[in-house]
Amino acid sequence: MSHINLQLLLTGNELINGDVIDTNSAYIAKQLKDIGIDVNRRVTLADSLPTLINEIKVMSEIADILIINGGLGPTSDDLTSEALSIAANLTLKENPQAIKHLQLWAEKRELTLDKANLKQALLPENCNIIHNKTGSAVGIHIKLNNCDIFCTPGVPSELKIMLNEEILPQLKSKLPKQEFLHTTRLQTFGIGESKLQMLIDEHLPDLPSNIEIGYRANSPTLELKLTTHTKAAYTLKETWLTKVHQVLDDHILGEIKDDDLTLPICVFQQLLDNKLTITTAESCTGGLIASQITALAGSSQIFEAGYVTYSNKMKTKMLSVPPTTLESYGAVSKETVIAMAKGALEHSNADIAIAVSGIAGPTGGTKEKPTGTVWIAWGNTTFINTQHFIIKSDRNSFQKIVAARCLDLVRRLLIKSNHKPLYIK
Amino acid sequence: MSHINLQLLLTGNELINGDVIDTNSAYIAKQLKDIGIDVNRRVTLADSLPTLINEIKVMSEIADILIINGGLGPTSDDLTSEALSIAANLTLKENPQAIKHLQLWAEKRELTLDKANLKQALLPENCNIIHNKTGSAVGIHIKLNNCDIFCTPGVPSELKIMLNEEILPQLKSKLPKQEFLHTTRLQTFGIGESKLQMLIDEHLPDLPSNIEIGYRANSPTLELKLTTHTKAAYTLKETWLTKVHQVLDDHILGEIKDDDLTLPICVFQQLLDNKLTITTAESCTGGLIASQITALAGSSQIFEAGYVTYSNKMKTKMLSVPPTTLESYGAVSKETVIAMAKGALEHSNADIAIAVSGIAGPTGGTKEKPTGTVWIAWGNTTFINTQHFIIKSDRNSFQKIVAARCLDLVRRLLIKSNHKPLYIK
Repeated sequence: MSHINLQLLLTGNELINGDVIDTNSAYIAKQLKDIGIDVNRRVTLADSLPTLINEIKVMSEIADILIINGGLGPTSDDLTSEALSIAANLTLKENPQAIKHLQLWAEKRELTLDKANLKQALLPENCNIIHNKTGSAVGIHIKLNNCDIFCTPGVPSELKIMLNEEILPQLKSKLPKQEFLHTTRLQTFGIGESKLQMLIDEHLPDLPSNIEIGYRANSPTLELKLTTHTKAAYTLKETWLTKVHQVLDDHILGEIKDDDLTLPICVFQQLLDNKLTITTAESCTGGLIASQITALAGSSQIFEAGYVTYSNKMKTKMLSVPPTTLESYGAVSKETVIAMAKGALEHSNADIAIAVSGIAGPTGGTKEKPTGTVWIAWGNTTFINTQHFIIKSDRNSFQKIVAARCLDLVRRLLIKSNHKPLYIK
Repeated sequence: MSHINLQLLLTGNELINGDVIDTNSAYIAKQLKDIGIDVNRRVTLADSLPTLINEIKVMSEIADILIINGGLGPTSDDLTSEALSIAANLTLKENPQAIKHLQLWAEKRELTLDKANLKQALLPENCNIIHNKTGSAVGIHIKLNNCDIFCTPGVPSELKIMLNEEILPQLKSKLPKQEFLHTTRLQTFGIGESKLQMLIDEHLPDLPSNIEIGYRANSPTLELKLTTHTKAAYTLKETWLTKVHQVLDDHILGEIKDDDLTLPICVFQQLLDNKLTITTAESCTGGLIASQITALAGSSQIFEAGYVTYSNKMKTKMLSVPPTTLESYGAVSKETVIAMAKGALEHSNADIAIAVSGIAGPTGGTKEKPTGTVWIAWGNTTFINTQHFIIKSDRNSFQKIVAARCLDLVRRLLIKSNHKPLYIK
């Protein structure tokens, strides 16, 4: 591990007064960790010029690298550039590169740049510009008191791209080459963090301690990281990875490389590879599964129709669920979800269907079918599987968990998994 | 505004390396805000003794009140008490009150105290104990460099009770009464942050500076906050609030009280009040609008059916869009979304329909209909409105923006707004 003193400075009234939960600094820390740098200290401040100036001065004296996040926006409470220029004793000047960036940004969006926007081009003279692929604010890099200062935007999506594509490669090139620093990231679903740790402790008690195990909850998935720093550990890793795969089995969605690996992506890829299409018949998830699938570019290749049948009447009208089935077994029943799946297959002509009906709550539960009860049916014209769960959770988490399990059950069908997932008792 | 300099010091490797998102400091800030104290600065550190000692010394010299969170647990990386005793030059001693607390705590749980537990009773001599109602770790209060230092547990549930029942009442009793501290939070949609600031600057140049204006981007909505601290400002606020309403008009969704105020909530409430139901016919948003509506408890009162018609074939099959309309005008056209809306109204029997078809990208655009093109239709059996946009954005943002505008257009229909929103040119 490097001995670089890297510190974070976050600015934003909303961060300090608690209106916004800071997720950026955790993201930055994780990404830095992957290239072998630990965050040493983090300071969070309100948007106040004198305080910011003072903190930048003090931090630049003790840190080797200072990443500032936030305060690059167009409004009057965005003070990072001004504070930086005063702290570093540099004139605040209109930066031609930043102006050009703003113009392109506005052009693309058919906007006219206003005074507030143009403020984002007022930067410390002679600073380096860091490209912002998606937003209007460019990043700033200067050196002060022998400390590399990088200013990044507070908007998470902009920060992510700037950090990964611009700043990390720069930092990496400054580090001594760490040829055995290597992280394998496995995406898993269906096992909680403590259960996962227990499984590893139980089945792999001899796992060498120089293969570091880390977790990252990416609700609903959980990332398992195996990191090595030394040659000895690196040489052993493949063997132990195989063993981890044996223990976790089909709970592993795959290895995360550059891009995210979500449940919808796995299902999408399997459908594409097998030249299959899918349809959704949703009651309690209300379109969430369809929207997760169609959030992916290219989804029209595998998805044509989704049915959100919230009422009994619509289950019958849109999916031909027999009224007698609904009367005899209720909307949340094995028989109803089977009929929904069959109806969806028939009406859409898709190869695979997923159907779901449940009680999301907070009201609507009964003694026999408490809030959290859900029935899922999934399959094709030859065979429909069903599964029943009771998920005790608030409404939104319930919907997300149900959607995730639906997708995971379809994924397991598509990869022809023979093993029951741990979330099915 | 109080002029108390209150600072937070958080300790925990998991906080600094990003394994855990820090929600405690937002909670502490909100609770303090309610009694009129702003957090001035927040420092987050890893569990390292020398670093902690140094930071406590430095912070106690500048702050009036220092709340330390975390590091009171039984394990070897819990260092707060030790660091505090060294920083304050006090001997670390077994505290009889803390021992008693631990014994009671263990008794209740039928546990035997081990060495690790007993470490939690090693406290700086002569410190004040803060009662912990639920956990094993007592809180600590000492005075150092004229700064009141309160050490609190990192477990959120323990922190909350200790803060609310023990620490806040102490702090409150020290404050002058602040009867004019008041914040009004307006939820807006359809105006960006810089445009909103410009509108206020332009139309309300005389807005008194003692009515503080603040923003909070809650994508897709934007919160505008007006805060007063003095009687003079408070007396003026109602008048200026009326003026703000005049300027921003129906871009204001309403005042945010305790709960969030989102676009789906506004539409839901309007439908409920007017005893109307809604249906969705979605192509490019793929179920996102339906899922946002059905995420709300009680949505079955206003929503029965949603149609995700991703292909042309399904637009015809599920919504009776005439194939000739699709052939003549294309799937992304005024004529098609009108037919989709009409079909959805007819098939679902709902009172209001929203229909949308667009090119989410990244591919699928043409010269006439570039990526980002979208047609929206909304209305009832009497009249269907339509609107065309080109939204240059990545796929996911496009879908979110489109869903938000759809809901806002329906909201404006339901409140019988006569004004064109700014996002329609």
